[in-house]
Amino acid sequence: MQDIWSIYLSGEIHTDWREEIAKGAKEKALPVQFSAPVTDHPASDDCGVTILGGEEKKFWHDRKGAQINGIRTTSLIKKADIVVVRFGEKYKQWNAAFDAGYAAALGKPLIINHGPEIVHPLKEVDAAAMAVAETPAQIVEILDYVINGKLAGYTE
Amino acid sequence: MQDIWSIYLSGEIHTDWREEIAKGAKEKALPVQFSAPVTDHPASDDCGVTILGGEEKKFWHDRKGAQINGIRTTSLIKKADIVVVRFGEKYKQWNAAFDAGYAAALGKPLIINHGPEIVHPLKEVDAAAMAVAETPAQIVEILDYVINGKLAGYTE
Amino acid sequence: MQDIWSIYLSGEIHTDWREEIAKGAKEKALPVQFSAPVTDHPASDDCGVTILGGEEKKFWHDRKGAQINGIRTTSLIKKADIVVVRFGEKYKQWNAAFDAGYAAALGKPLIINHGPEIVHPLKEVDAAAMAVAETPAQIVEILDYVINGKLAGYTE
Amino acid sequence: MQDIWSIYLSGEIHTDWREEIAKGAKEKALPVQFSAPVTDHPASDDCGVTILGGEEKKFWHDRKGAQINGIRTTSLIKKADIVVVRFGEKYKQWNAAFDAGYAAALGKPLIINHGPEIVHPLKEVDAAAMAVAETPAQIVEILDYVINGKLAGYTE
Amino acid sequence: MQDIWSIYLSGEIHTDWREEIAKGAKEKALPVQFSAPVTDHPASDDCGVTILGGEEKKFWHDRKGAQINGIRTTSLIKKADIVVVRFGEKYKQWNAAFDAGYAAALGKPLIINHGPEIVHPLKEVDAAAMAVAETPAQIVEILDYVINGKLAGYTE
Amino acid sequence: MQDIWSIYLSGEIHTDWREEIAKGAKEKALPVQFSAPVTDHPASDDCGVTILGGEEKKFWHDRKGAQINGIRTTSLIKKADIVVVRFGEKYKQWNAAFDAGYAAALGKPLIINHGPEIVHPLKEVDAAAMAVAETPAQIVEILDYVINGKLAGYTE
Amino acid sequence: MQDIWSIYLSGEIHTDWREEIAKGAKEKALPVQFSAPVTDHPASDDCGVTILGGEEKKFWHDRKGAQINGIRTTSLIKKADIVVVRFGEKYKQWNAAFDAGYAAALGKPLIINHGPEIVHPLKEVDAAAMAVAETPAQIVEILDYVINGKLAGYTE
Amino acid sequence: MQDIWSIYLSGEIHTDWREEIAKGAKEKALPVQFSAPVTDHPASDDCGVTILGGEEKKFWHDRKGAQINGIRTTSLIKKADIVVVRFGEKYKQWNAAFDAGYAAALGKPLIINHGPEIVHPLKEVDAAAMAVAETPAQIVEILDYVINGKLAGYTE
Repeated sequence: MQDIWSIYLSGEIHTDWREEIAKGAKEKALPVQFSAPVTDHPASDDCGVTILGGEEKKFWHDRKGAQINGIRTTSLIKKADIVVVRFGEKYKQWNAAFDAGYAAALGKPLIINHGPEIVHPLKEVDAAAMAVAETPAQIVEILDYVINGKLAGYTE
Repeated sequence: MQDIWSIYLSGEIHTDWREEIAKGAKEKALPVQFSAPVTDHPASDDCGVTILGGEEKKFWHDRKGAQINGIRTTSLIKKADIVVVRFGEKYKQWNAAFDAGYAAALGKPLIINHGPEIVHPLKEVDAAAMAVAETPAQIVEILDYVINGKLAGYTE
Repeated sequence: MQDIWSIYLSGEIHTDWREEIAKGAKEKALPVQFSAPVTDHPASDDCGVTILGGEEKKFWHDRKGAQINGIRTTSLIKKADIVVVRFGEKYKQWNAAFDAGYAAALGKPLIINHGPEIVHPLKEVDAAAMAVAETPAQIVEILDYVINGKLAGYTE
Repeated sequence: MQDIWSIYLSGEIHTDWREEIAKGAKEKALPVQFSAPVTDHPASDDCGVTILGGEEKKFWHDRKGAQINGIRTTSLIKKADIVVVRFGEKYKQWNAAFDAGYAAALGKPLIINHGPEIVHPLKEVDAAAMAVAETPAQIVEILDYVINGKLAGYTE
Repeated sequence: MQDIWSIYLSGEIHTDWREEIAKGAKEKALPVQFSAPVTDHPASDDCGVTILGGEEKKFWHDRKGAQINGIRTTSLIKKADIVVVRFGEKYKQWNAAFDAGYAAALGKPLIINHGPEIVHPLKEVDAAAMAVAETPAQIVEILDYVINGKLAGYTE
Repeated sequence: MQDIWSIYLSGEIHTDWREEIAKGAKEKALPVQFSAPVTDHPASDDCGVTILGGEEKKFWHDRKGAQINGIRTTSLIKKADIVVVRFGEKYKQWNAAFDAGYAAALGKPLIINHGPEIVHPLKEVDAAAMAVAETPAQIVEILDYVINGKLAGYTE
Repeated sequence: MQDIWSIYLSGEIHTDWREEIAKGAKEKALPVQFSAPVTDHPASDDCGVTILGGEEKKFWHDRKGAQINGIRTTSLIKKADIVVVRFGEKYKQWNAAFDAGYAAALGKPLIINHGPEIVHPLKEVDAAAMAVAETPAQIVEILDYVINGKLAGYTE
Repeated sequence: MQDIWSIYLSGEIHTDWREEIAKGAKEKALPVQFSAPVTDHPASDDCGVTILGGEEKKFWHDRKGAQINGIRTTSLIKKADIVVVRFGEKYKQWNAAFDAGYAAALGKPLIINHGPEIVHPLKEVDAAAMAVAETPAQIVEILDYVINGKLAGYTE
C-alpha cells in the first residue's frame, strides 16, 4: 500500500492549470490528492456576508469572507506535503505570495510556477522554493520524480 | 476518497445545538466527524469521585473530575481541524472561554457561536475567531463552504 | 546577578489586586517584572476606533479594539514565566478564562486567584493551574517561595 | 528597567514611512527597536553577485541576492515582537506579502499598512492582521497604546 | 467510524496489570490500541549485546540494550494519546519515572497507577498527572469515560 | 490491526543493502514500510535540468537537481519513525551525514550502519545514534526487536 | 563579553554535591549560573499547605506542595542550557528520574551523576545522557571543557 | 544599542579560516560573537576518557568524547543566528555535514564555505544553504551586508 501525498495548489484562479496538473497526475497514476482554495471567485468574495449577514463597509465585507476562506486555506496548507503556488501575469495576487510565505515558515517544500516575464519581482518568493517551474507539465514531472523516482530518459 | 474533517464542539450543554449541527451536516453529507466534551452534566461533575473515590472537600471533588474531563477535552481539541465554541445566555461558561483560548494558542481555526446580546463581553474571544455565527445553521453553512466550496446562490 | 522573572497578571480590573501584589513583591525585593493588560476600561474599549477610525456597528467597534489589545496580551503572555489570572465576583470575565486557556496551551505555569464562592464554575480553569490562591498575599508568598526558596516558618 | 520591543518594518521602500514611524516613536520615547530589510534597492538587487561573483542568467543573479537578503529578513522577523508590513500603490510587492504570510505562520502579531484603494486585493493579508492602518502616524499610536497603554483623550 | 485511541502502558513488569487492563477494555469494546515496552526482562537487558555483539563492561552492555529499547519506548510515547505509568512496590523503577517526565514534557495526558504506600515519594510524578489510580480496573473506567463518556450509575 | 512503521534508508547507493533489509523484513513479516532517496545515480544528478531546463554552470545544474531531490528526502525523513543511515567505504557521502544531522535535530531515532574501519571519522554521527550496526542483518534484528519485541534465543 | 551558561542541578538533596560543583566552578571562574529545586526538605514538603491552607489528606497535602515546586522546577529546566541529575544511594528519587525524562524530551543536554553500584537500574536514564559522571569534580571538568574548551594535560 | 549576532563556525580545523573571519569582522567592527567546536584536535578526541576514565575499545573511547563535544556543539548551534560550515579539501569531515543537516532542520540560515573542486559531492549540503562562499573574506562581506546593510560600491 502506497502513501498518498497531499499537494496544495495555491494561486492563480483564471486559467485551468489545476486541471492540467490533475489530468497529468491521473495519466501517470500518481498517488496524490490535490486541494486548493475555493476557485469560484464570486463565492470566494461573498461567502462571509452570504452566510453571516451583510456589511455596508467593503472592508468588513471582505474581512468576513477572507477569514472564512482562511479556515480552508490555512487548514489545507498545514495538511499538505508539498505546496505549489502559481502566479499569473495579471492581478496583484498578494494572497498567493502570502500563502507562499506561510508555507515557507511552516517548512513545507515549495514549488513556484510562473512565466519568465515576472522572474525579477518574484525573486524573494522563488528563493524560498525547492523548484521554480514554468509550466504545469513540469510540475507533474517533478511530482512523478519526487514520489516515484521516475525520470523520462533515465528510469524508463 | 475524501478526507474527514474533525470538528470539536465546545461550550453550552443545555440546548440541542450539537444535534442541530450534526443533522445539518448529515443532510449535506459533509465529510465531518464531530467530537465534544461529555455533555451529561452530573456525570461530568462526578466522574472523578465515582471512579477514584470520594472527597470531603468540594474543591478536590471538582479537581478530580475536571482533570479526567481534561484528558478528553484537551485530547480532542488537539486532534481537531476546527474548533467551534458556543456561549449560551446563562451561566459563567468559563470552561468554554478556556477552551477557546486553548485552541487559539494551538493555532486551531475558531468559530464562535452566540447571540447578539453578549457581543461586548465576548469581544476578546470573538477577536480570536475566524467566524462569529449567531446560529447553528450558519455553522453548517460555513462547514459546507470551507470543506466543499459550496455556497447557496453561487455554486449551486 | 539574578534572573528577573516575568509575571503576567491577567483578569479582574476593578480592584487594586495588582498593586497589592506589586507592593508585596517590592517589600520582599523579589526579582520580578509584572505586566498586565491595559486596565483603563474606557481606553481598552475604544482604542481601536480612536486610533483607526469609528465604526457604526458595535461589533466592529469591539473587534478593532479587542485585536489591538490582543497584540499586547498575547505578546506579554508569550514572554511571561508565570501567568496569574484573577476572577472577581462580578462580570463575565470571559477574557480572563480565555487568557488562562491560552497560557495553559503554551505550557506556562498558571496561578489562579479567586474567592471560594466561585470554585465550582471555575473547576476546569483551576484544574489547569499549578496553584489556586484566594488572596494576592498568597500569590506573593508563592512567588517568594518559587523564586527564592523562602517559606515563612521554615527557611527564615 | 523596561523591556525593549522589537518591531520589524517590512514592505514598501520608495517613501520615507520608516523614518516617520521612527521619528514618532522617538518623540514619544517608546522603548522600541526597529529593524527592516536592506532598503538600498541597487544593493539589495546586486548583493549576491557583488559578493559571490557574477551570473549570466538573471534568474541566478536574482537567486543569489534574494537568498542573502533572506538571511537578514527571516532572522529579523523571527526576532520581532511585532511585524508591520506596508504596501504602496505601485509595484508587485510580492516580497511584502510573502513576509506577511511568513510572520503570520510564526504567530507574530501583524499590523498591515496601506491606503483605501487596495483594500480588496489585500483582503487575505488584512484578514491575518491584528490591525490595518492607513498611516504611519496610526502605527505609532498603536505602538504607544500596546506598549505603554497610552491613548490620546483617555489616559492622558 | 470511530477513532482508535493509542494508550502507552509504561512501568512495572512483574505483575499482569497490562493484561487486566486489556481484558477490561475488551469487555467494554473500547476503541483502544495498547502499546508497551518489551516486558521480557532478560530480552530487554540483553538485546543490545545479542544483536550488536558482547561487551566486557556492564556499563556498555546496559547502554547498548537501553538505547535499542529507547527506540521503541520514545517512539511509542510520542505516538500515544494517553500515557499510563504504573509503579509497583519493589525496585527502583527509574525508567518508569523517566517515562512519566518524558511524556509530561511532550504534553501527553498522564495517568499514574500505584498503591497508597508510595504516595509520598511519587508526589512530583503524581502532580504532573491528570489522574492517579490505585487499580487497573479504575484505569479501564477512566478510559471508558474519557473515550465514550460512559460512567457507571450515571450514563448507563 | 497493527501499526505500520515507516523506516527511511539513507546513504550508500552502490550496494544492495536496502534489498537485504527489505528481504529480511519480509521473511519476518515485519509491519514496516521502507522509503529511500532516488537511488538511480544519473537520474538523481540530472533530474533538475531534465525537467526544468539545462544549465551551463555545473553549480546550478547540481543545485536544481539537489533541491528537487530535497523535496523527496526531507519529506520522507519527516514522515519516518526510524531513520537508518549507511556509510560505505568509498566516496564523500556528505549527503548521508547531512541526513543524519537533519534527522537527529528532528528527534528521530537514528540507526547508523558502517564497517569498523571508519569508526573514528564517524564518531560524532555515531554518538547521535541509538544503535550502530555493522550489517544489514543486524538492522533487521533491531527492527524485529523494537517493533515486535522478538529476540533470538530469548523470546523464541 | 562571554555568555553565561545556565546549569540546572536536579536530584539528591542530602549531600553537598551542589556546593562542590559551585566551588569548583568558582575556582575555574566558569561563566555559569546554577539553579536547583528548593533543597530545604521540610519547606519543600509543606510549602503548599503553609501558603494555601492545610489538608487532612496526605495526598492533597503533597499535591499542593508538589505543584508549587513544579512551577520552579519546570521553569528552571526550560531555561537551562545543561541539566545535571544526581542520584544518591538511598531513597526512591523518582522526582530526579522524572526531571531527567522531562529534560530529555525537551532536548536538553543531560549529565547524569551516580556511583557505580546503581549502574544497572539507571541504564535507561544513563542512555539518554551525554555524559555519566561518578563525581562532582568530573562535572566541573566537563563544564570547563564544554564551555571553555579547556582539558587538563592538553590545552593547559 | 545594537543587537549582537551569534555566528557558529563549524567544520574544518586545520587552517586558520576562523581567525581570518574574526579579523575581518573586527576590522569592520561587526556586532558579532563567534563560537565554534573545540578545535584542539587531541583534546577533542580524548576529552571523554580523560575526564570520565579510559576505555579499552576505541569505539567507546570515541563515543565518550563525541558526546561531550556534542553538548557544546548542539548547544551553540541552537543559540546561533547564523551557522557557517567550512569543508576543506582533505578528510571525511562527516561531522561538518552532520552539523549542516542539524542546523538546516532547526531552520538556521546556513552559509557553506568550500573550494570549487568539491562542488559536486557537496551539492545536497549547498542546496540547503542561503549562500555558498569560496573564501572567508566573502563570509565577512556577507555578514557586513546582512547585519549592517553595507555593500562595497553601493552603500559606501
